[in-house]
Amino acid sequence: MFTENVLPDHWPPARDEQIWIDMGAIDNEQERQILLALGIEPLMVEDIQHPRKPPKLEYHDDYTFILLRGMDQESTSQNLKTLQISFLIGDNFLITRHQGRSRSVEESWQEVMAAQSPLQAADTARRIMQRIQDRYVPMLMDLENRLGEVEEELVENANDELLSELVGYKTRLRRLRRTFNYHERLFSQWKEDVEEELGEPDRAMTRLYEAAERLQSLVSLYYDWVGDLSDGYISLASHRLNNIMKVLTVITAIFVPLSFLAGLYGMNFDNIPELHFRYGYFVLLLVMTGIAAALLWLFRKSRWI
Amino acid sequence: MFTENVLPDHWPPARDEQIWIDMGAIDNEQERQILLALGIEPLMVEDIQHPRKPPKLEYHDDYTFILLRGMDQESTSQNLKTLQISFLIGDNFLITRHQGRSRSVEESWQEVMAAQSPLQAADTARRIMQRIQDRYVPMLMDLENRLGEVEEELVENANDELLSELVGYKTRLRRLRRTFNYHERLFSQWKEDVEEELGEPDRAMTRLYEAAERLQSLVSLYYDWVGDLSDGYISLASHRLNNIMKVLTVITAIFVPLSFLAGLYGMNFDNIPELHFRYGYFVLLLVMTGIAAALLWLFRKSRWI
Amino acid sequence: MFTENVLPDHWPPARDEQIWIDMGAIDNEQERQILLALGIEPLMVEDIQHPRKPPKLEYHDDYTFILLRGMDQESTSQNLKTLQISFLIGDNFLITRHQGRSRSVEESWQEVMAAQSPLQAADTARRIMQRIQDRYVPMLMDLENRLGEVEEELVENANDELLSELVGYKTRLRRLRRTFNYHERLFSQWKEDVEEELGEPDRAMTRLYEAAERLQSLVSLYYDWVGDLSDGYISLASHRLNNIMKVLTVITAIFVPLSFLAGLYGMNFDNIPELHFRYGYFVLLLVMTGIAAALLWLFRKSRWI
Amino acid sequence: MFTENVLPDHWPPARDEQIWIDMGAIDNEQERQILLALGIEPLMVEDIQHPRKPPKLEYHDDYTFILLRGMDQESTSQNLKTLQISFLIGDNFLITRHQGRSRSVEESWQEVMAAQSPLQAADTARRIMQRIQDRYVPMLMDLENRLGEVEEELVENANDELLSELVGYKTRLRRLRRTFNYHERLFSQWKEDVEEELGEPDRAMTRLYEAAERLQSLVSLYYDWVGDLSDGYISLASHRLNNIMKVLTVITAIFVPLSFLAGLYGMNFDNIPELHFRYGYFVLLLVMTGIAAALLWLFRKSRWI
Amino acid sequence: MFTENVLPDHWPPARDEQIWIDMGAIDNEQERQILLALGIEPLMVEDIQHPRKPPKLEYHDDYTFILLRGMDQESTSQNLKTLQISFLIGDNFLITRHQGRSRSVEESWQEVMAAQSPLQAADTARRIMQRIQDRYVPMLMDLENRLGEVEEELVENANDELLSELVGYKTRLRRLRRTFNYHERLFSQWKEDVEEELGEPDRAMTRLYEAAERLQSLVSLYYDWVGDLSDGYISLASHRLNNIMKVLTVITAIFVPLSFLAGLYGMNFDNIPELHFRYGYFVLLLVMTGIAAALLWLFRKSRWI
Ligand SMILES: [Mg+2]
Ligand SMILES: [Mg+2]
Ligand SMILES: [Mg+2]
Ligand SMILES: [Mg+2]
Ligand SMILES: [Mg+2]
Ligand SMILES: [Mg+2]
Ligand SMILES: [Mg+2]
Ligand SMILES: [Mg+2]
Ligand SMILES: [Mg+2]
Ligand SMILES: [Mg+2]
Ligand SMILES: [Mg+2]
Ligand SMILES: [Mg+2]
Ligand SMILES: [Mg+2]
Ligand SMILES: [Mg+2]
Ligand SMILES: [Mg+2]
Ligand SMILES: [Mg+2]
Ligand SMILES: [Mg+2]
Ligand SMILES: [Mg+2]
Ligand SMILES: [Mg+2]
Ligand SMILES: [Mg+2]
Ligand SMILES: [Mg+2]
Ligand SMILES: [Mg+2]
Ligand SMILES: [Mg+2]
Ligand SMILES: [Mg+2]
Ligand SMILES: [Mg+2]
Ligand SMILES: [Mg+2]
Ligand SMILES: [Mg+2]
Ligand SMILES: [Mg+2]
Ligand SMILES: [Mg+2]
Ligand SMILES: [Mg+2]
Ligand SMILES: [Mg+2]
Repeated sequence: MFTENVLPDHWPPARDEQIWIDMGAIDNEQERQILLALGIEPLMVEDIQHPRKPPKLEYHDDYTFILLRGMDQESTSQNLKTLQISFLIGDNFLITRHQGRSRSVEESWQEVMAAQSPLQAADTARRIMQRIQDRYVPMLMDLENRLGEVEEELVENANDELLSELVGYKTRLRRLRRTFNYHERLFSQWKEDVEEELGEPDRAMTRLYEAAERLQSLVSLYYDWVGDLSDGYISLASHRLNNIMKVLTVITAIFVPLSFLAGLYGMNFDNIPELHFRYGYFVLLLVMTGIAAALLWLFRKSRWI
Repeated sequence: MFTENVLPDHWPPARDEQIWIDMGAIDNEQERQILLALGIEPLMVEDIQHPRKPPKLEYHDDYTFILLRGMDQESTSQNLKTLQISFLIGDNFLITRHQGRSRSVEESWQEVMAAQSPLQAADTARRIMQRIQDRYVPMLMDLENRLGEVEEELVENANDELLSELVGYKTRLRRLRRTFNYHERLFSQWKEDVEEELGEPDRAMTRLYEAAERLQSLVSLYYDWVGDLSDGYISLASHRLNNIMKVLTVITAIFVPLSFLAGLYGMNFDNIPELHFRYGYFVLLLVMTGIAAALLWLFRKSRWI
Repeated sequence: MFTENVLPDHWPPARDEQIWIDMGAIDNEQERQILLALGIEPLMVEDIQHPRKPPKLEYHDDYTFILLRGMDQESTSQNLKTLQISFLIGDNFLITRHQGRSRSVEESWQEVMAAQSPLQAADTARRIMQRIQDRYVPMLMDLENRLGEVEEELVENANDELLSELVGYKTRLRRLRRTFNYHERLFSQWKEDVEEELGEPDRAMTRLYEAAERLQSLVSLYYDWVGDLSDGYISLASHRLNNIMKVLTVITAIFVPLSFLAGLYGMNFDNIPELHFRYGYFVLLLVMTGIAAALLWLFRKSRWI
Repeated sequence: MFTENVLPDHWPPARDEQIWIDMGAIDNEQERQILLALGIEPLMVEDIQHPRKPPKLEYHDDYTFILLRGMDQESTSQNLKTLQISFLIGDNFLITRHQGRSRSVEESWQEVMAAQSPLQAADTARRIMQRIQDRYVPMLMDLENRLGEVEEELVENANDELLSELVGYKTRLRRLRRTFNYHERLFSQWKEDVEEELGEPDRAMTRLYEAAERLQSLVSLYYDWVGDLSDGYISLASHRLNNIMKVLTVITAIFVPLSFLAGLYGMNFDNIPELHFRYGYFVLLLVMTGIAAALLWLFRKSRWI
Repeated sequence: MFTENVLPDHWPPARDEQIWIDMGAIDNEQERQILLALGIEPLMVEDIQHPRKPPKLEYHDDYTFILLRGMDQESTSQNLKTLQISFLIGDNFLITRHQGRSRSVEESWQEVMAAQSPLQAADTARRIMQRIQDRYVPMLMDLENRLGEVEEELVENANDELLSELVGYKTRLRRLRRTFNYHERLFSQWKEDVEEELGEPDRAMTRLYEAAERLQSLVSLYYDWVGDLSDGYISLASHRLNNIMKVLTVITAIFVPLSFLAGLYGMNFDNIPELHFRYGYFVLLLVMTGIAAALLWLFRKSRWI
């Protein structure tokens, strides 16, 4: 039996029944009433409705509470938003709660609807969780491709947008790293507890944990990458600045003294004997050429040009 | 029974009584007398009155001693001050001590007053501690919003105030990280000890620990964020400096040689044949245009403009 | 018995038989059919064919599954590509799978062919794995030599290619570090499990683990080295920029005031008395020499030149 | 019974006696003779006299050997020197050794002299050790205040002395961090061993350990602070350099082209028609104003001014 | 009995005999023959002759294999080379192997020769190992002194050699840190195993371990020091660059406008009325003085000078 945003017609479910209640984007007060009617403790309801909690796993008498952070519908690799999804997993009921649409929940809902009978609650929950994690993967692959492009562009043609794109990635990857760190520890704990109870390894739990571990590892890798790109850019920029400054200094060093000489003989003093030498101008041109050549030789010797 | 800054009328409390003594901002010597009269060991009194101790948890025969660091009344996210709050938690008494007003204590005091009877001492203490931690949250949320703004401003319009604001955040977040690190370990230890004694998980302890863990995690995240913003700004500034220097170098490289030529023909030598050529001036203008064009082409080719 | 890219003529192998099936670079669908025909679970087949999975070790009822990342045929220290290689190691069968040619597999294949009878499956697998790891060593030694060269070149003659070469090394070494980190944990786990079963240390397992540990340690060392080179270059570039700017500033500071004076007496005002002094020009030359000398002395004193 | 730099009149001490021998700044050979006469093994004597050993804890048959590093008499927060202090703690004797005056030892000596009878050897040793650690605290508080000042000065008025002061702090804090790291581990180990023997927590040991832990934590905090200040200064300096360069570039960009034009019409060609236009000069002034205005508008538009 | 580079006259040694065979710098093939004749497994011989293996400890049936990295004969703190030294430690034999002269081995050899009878094999080995580690100490002390000098020189008089000296130290210290990390873990493991067998602490093992720990700790300290010096230099250089640029900008900003004015009145237009004003020149001089004063005041106000 499934219900969406409303109380099921009987509660608790019969022993041989499986009920899934999905509460998406309904009014907070109405939601609270339903949750209380389902027998959830008031403190727990507060926790569920809290808009910003880190992912967590908590065992209660009648259910296991799990809070994850999924990708929001409109997220892209350039603009990432996340969505809190709560799971209350009982023996024969599953309550899912999210403040906004969750594609992972919707797809699982359709799958279950098509099959006409819900799986055991925990299995359904794990399928949704697997979907939640899988949905991050293409976004991260996009990001990896983009970082590869950025790595090449940085060397050839950096610009302000590219650099502030990097700053933005760093912020988002830092947050994701934190989230996935919680997820990894959560699934590691849950896997251990489930397998201890079963007395044997569980493939679904292993897949959930490995997905979390891989996400965490990828995000750390990308975070470090972005940092190294930023550091590497600074080296490159330092190098280029040195080259630019050498050009500027060479030009200045050569022309400024020559211009000074020209200025000197452009003065209007009544008595400047050189001005009246027959070949004064030509001698000066020679002197200037000599100065320029000497300076060029000097710069060449010190490897500036 | 509650007393504020004075000895209760009888001590120790009767077995079925619960006494809370709150000592806020009174004279140190008077405070010492009261504490000694309450049977606290002299060494312990010294510890309590010490103005700068890191948070700690210590079990004594008659009570548990806990020292936390709360937010001072006048703190804002821009100017954070902290306040030491000591707790001596006995079976049927609670002594709280803080050198300055503590809103967390005051609110709990009013709550207890309204209820007319204090809770069991440990419960009262945990409520105050929860309040102490909760009061950091809005300040940190403010900081997060501000960091989001700073991230955007840094890219568009950095200035000295913005950058020294960042330096200041780093110092405060470093200190908070240290404090919350002590809190997290303290509550983790206390939770473990309490739950071992109870033989079951305790919800209030879990909430205290999770709050400490979340504060620690948030503050680490913000500290790293500030560091990354500062690093990212250096990349951006390196990039912009390169652009500025290119503009400067291009202008210099083009006009300095031309000005030299103009200076050359502004000289007053008697014998400069070019000056008397009919189209000397126009030829020179052409030559100058040619030089400028060649240099522009060169700079374009090396992607400077 | 060995087969390549096709099903063996009987399956499962007889008890006293050892079969090695190698599946390299064949069509994905055909591969899937063969794997299913060999009795591999569909979920496992999916895992094997997934193009990007981190290295892992997994025990199944009939075989041990190991996924490693070897060096691709065309890799060089300048352009590193890796190749996923899957191993399914049963008691008397070994299935290897790689999407592209693997020299490590080919060499082991030839060795086994020459011996006319395959070793026990696990031994064959370990030999291939040892080869996979050994093949990284010469590439890393090349890289070490190259880094030594880069270290010297950076000091003497940095250029954009050198610096972006460093950025590229950092990206590749970061990925390799992650891969070898997985390998080290994998072989550490496998070694422990195998030795626990045997009840004694196993030399082949020890070699595999030590090779993984050494690769991980070398790659970390090189990664840090590249980072330090990049940081060191920034120090050097800062130092050189300072020197360049001093030269530029000294030249500017000396000639700009002199040129101003020259410009002043190049003006065409009717009434500039100095122009008509008999030794005006020579006095000015003296003044200019004095200014230049004073400035040079000043710069010398402040150690700029 | 106490002796200073000489052998006590009988040795070993009687069972109900407590002897403290303090060896400060005496000749190495004489010291060696005394130590050997006291029955200390030659290898141990070597260890004690070694001028540079990291802090350590070592259990011997007749005594516990502890080596700490205290603050030298003349140390200030600006110029820190440390001093090795060895303790040999027997059941009824204490030998302290330091190559130079130790205020912590001297104060304890006077305290014990005043009391006329030494405490049990271990208690005396712990009191000295507590003093050694306490003496670091005011120096660290001074440093904290100074760092607060430096943080403000860096933003407003950095200079070479300030920056090399920071470099110096970093070196000293790095060394202190290492020393306190050894101390923390040493006291943690000793506390554990003593409390295991006693079967209950020991307050003096707890105080020693907490002091060590606090010193280690403070020094780490200050070390990170100095690093962040240095990093933050680089951001600020990058920002200011950009501003300086913008001013320079704007001035250059505006006046260099105008000066070129002025130079052009200062040339002495016979035939420059513009020179003879009636309003040539005024038209040129207008053109120059136009160019300057256009450039100012351009710079304003690109937010350079 | 001792032999150098040759087989002893009988093998294995008699029960009450102690044989030490030292193989230094002989032909690889000859060495291999001797090792095989001594009953060393071929795989082990390969390991021993491998030119680049990280330090390791390995227990075999008849001997313990230890590989260390000592300082090469010609090493200085400026140019460090290391040398692999293998030890095969049996009950009554010791085989040492090094591809080049080892002073530690030579000194131990002379010591043993002087004593006419070798110690028990393990004791001899430990003495050599202690020497190997002790030989690093003076080199590290030299380095510490040099780093102290570099710290002062960097502030006063940095140059390219100094900075590339730092880059070189970082590379060598990174390698040493890795080597000493292996040594520390190796001696920690060996100490534990030996003491477990003996059932009591062993002084020689403790000294070996503590030497390794101290080397590791010192090298980490120096590595961080070099990094901090390099970072600190960047702060200092940023500061100085700002000062240089301010000087350059002030000079440019003052003289460039004045030179422009001079150029303006150096133009040869027929009609420039100002040129014919009686006090035109003097008024212009006043205006120029005014402009310079205003700019100086402006720069002073913004604290540039
Ligand atoms: Mg974390
Ligand atoms: Mg994080
Ligand atoms: Mg990982
Ligand atoms: Mg991980
Ligand atoms: Mg990095
Ligand atoms: Mg960075
Ligand atoms: Mg901290
Ligand atoms: Mg701490
Ligand atoms: Mg945490
Ligand atoms: Mg956390
Ligand atoms: Mg953390
Ligand atoms: Mg960071
Ligand atoms: Mg930073
Ligand atoms: Mg990694
Ligand atoms: Mg390692
Ligand atoms: Mg490792
Ligand atoms: Mg590094
Ligand atoms: Mg770096
Ligand atoms: Mg340290
Ligand atoms: Mg600590
Ligand atoms: Mg600490
Ligand atoms: Mg730093
Ligand atoms: Mg930091
Ligand atoms: Mg830095
Ligand atoms: Mg290592
Ligand atoms: Mg290393
Ligand atoms: Mg260590
Ligand atoms: Mg250490
Ligand atoms: Mg250490
Ligand atoms: Mg450091
Ligand atoms: Mg560095």
